Amino acid sequence: MTAPADTGWLVIAGLGPGAARLVTPEVSDTLAAATDLVGYGPYVARVPARENVVRHGSDNREEIDRARLALRLAAEGRRVAVVSSGDPGVFAMAAAVFEAMETGDPTWRGLDVRVLPGVTAMTAAAARAGAPLGHDFCAVNLSDNLKPWDLVERRLTLAAEADFVIALYNPVSKARPWQLGRALELLRTVRAADAPVVFATAVSEAHERVDTVRLADADPTRADMRTLVIVGSSQTRLIVRPGGRAAFVYTPRSAPSAGTS
Amino acid sequence: MTAPADTGWLVIAGLGPGAARLVTPEVSDTLAAATDLVGYGPYVARVPARENVVRHGSDNREEIDRARLALRLAAEGRRVAVVSSGDPGVFAMAAAVFEAMETGDPTWRGLDVRVLPGVTAMTAAAARAGAPLGHDFCAVNLSDNLKPWDLVERRLTLAAEADFVIALYNPVSKARPWQLGRALELLRTVRAADAPVVFATAVSEAHERVDTVRLADADPTRADMRTLVIVGSSQTRLIVRPGGRAAFVYTPRSAPSAGTS
Repeated sequence: MTAPADTGWLVIAGLGPGAARLVTPEVSDTLAAATDLVGYGPYVARVPARENVVRHGSDNREEIDRARLALRLAAEGRRVAVVSSGDPGVFAMAAAVFEAMETGDPTWRGLDVRVLPGVTAMTAAAARAGAPLGHDFCAVNLSDNLKPWDLVERRLTLAAEADFVIALYNPVSKARPWQLGRALELLRTVRAADAPVVFATAVSEAHERVDTVRLADADPTRADMRTLVIVGSSQTRLIVRPGGRAAFVYTPRSAPSAGTS
Repeated sequence: MTAPADTGWLVIAGLGPGAARLVTPEVSDTLAAATDLVGYGPYVARVPARENVVRHGSDNREEIDRARLALRLAAEGRRVAVVSSGDPGVFAMAAAVFEAMETGDPTWRGLDVRVLPGVTAMTAAAARAGAPLGHDFCAVNLSDNLKPWDLVERRLTLAAEADFVIALYNPVSKARPWQLGRALELLRTVRAADAPVVFATAVSEAHERVDTVRLADADPTRADMRTLVIVGSSQTRLIVRPGGRAAFVYTPRSAPSAGTS
């Protein structure tokens, strides 16, 4: 079953936020040609069943081991797809594969490795709420597994000072219960109480839930591992709608001078 | 040809960076059901030909007029797709449609309006270079058409202080020839000379060109209207590859404490 070594390749493919309708044709076609699927179990399970494909599902905290396995398989001539939720280059598997490549077997650098982009969580969440990312923004991974918490706080403070809209990835997990609450507390000291905050969970899936609240009312327990949080800037606005429809949230394209916000 | 008013809808759809293989099935299927396509001429031209579809192509500086036209058509019962390059919520048409809705005919707020996400330019560009957005990052629109230049400079300074990877959208146009040069000059005063800078032009198209240079050597004339620029953080690294292949650029998932960069 092993293909000749010169036909091996490795792609790191983005599956988008969840629904099949948000997977690019490039990713679908490439997954259909893979011999091996590598990734966090629930993401591997999203790929449609096909004969003769080996599924290497793993726990979500084994990223480097998973990346090394993928590189080894490609070096053996397998056609390997590492699957990520969202876009693989945004707080996902692409950086882990390059870390494994840089520190691993030098011949891995010669492999055919490609990253296939996907719809990342923050743009999918933003689309469901309106257009909160319509002006300058930043994306901060709230996980302090691989960076010190003081760096997260420093970045949030500077981002608030820059009046960026702020997208918070990985706001909470079982092992990280307090970080989102602390981040919101910090932002409340520098941003207006009525800045809109979007909580978007399981976007595009059957149990999708998108809520917009005021920063003053933002309850960190609303978030879970499938939630993306977007904190509006001083310019972010709500459009109230008739008939009980959810308000749209958007950030206008224009902005006043620095210091006037 | 006009459909009954209660069937009208408006979607703002992201076409991705260029190639059809990066358009989501959700967007393709929705475009196939539209009666009217509205957008900047070259983006409207990307949508496959079909009978009985009205194409409203326009100049790229008429965003608000285009948004009003789209809302009027939907209110008349047409099925309208406003098309954007990349993701419509990132420096594109979605914010313009919501601005037009908020300031226009109050009945427009009751329309069926949806945003359909796409692969945005920075994740497509990052994928071609490796994984430069693998750690915290920000996105700044370098256009000063709708915001004062002093705000752009202030944001770049704070972003550099936060050690964000920085994605620069709309780095240059005929009417804005000097802004990218000034932005790079400013970043050279706060970021190391050998920070990697990615220039990615026409990603996924036949004339795609992706180059990585040192910040000290970054030449603003390399960019045109189809270019996305990514400036690495203090942690962004290169992986040199054999056989004349382009180096991979990536930002590791981990980072040292604040103040040590």
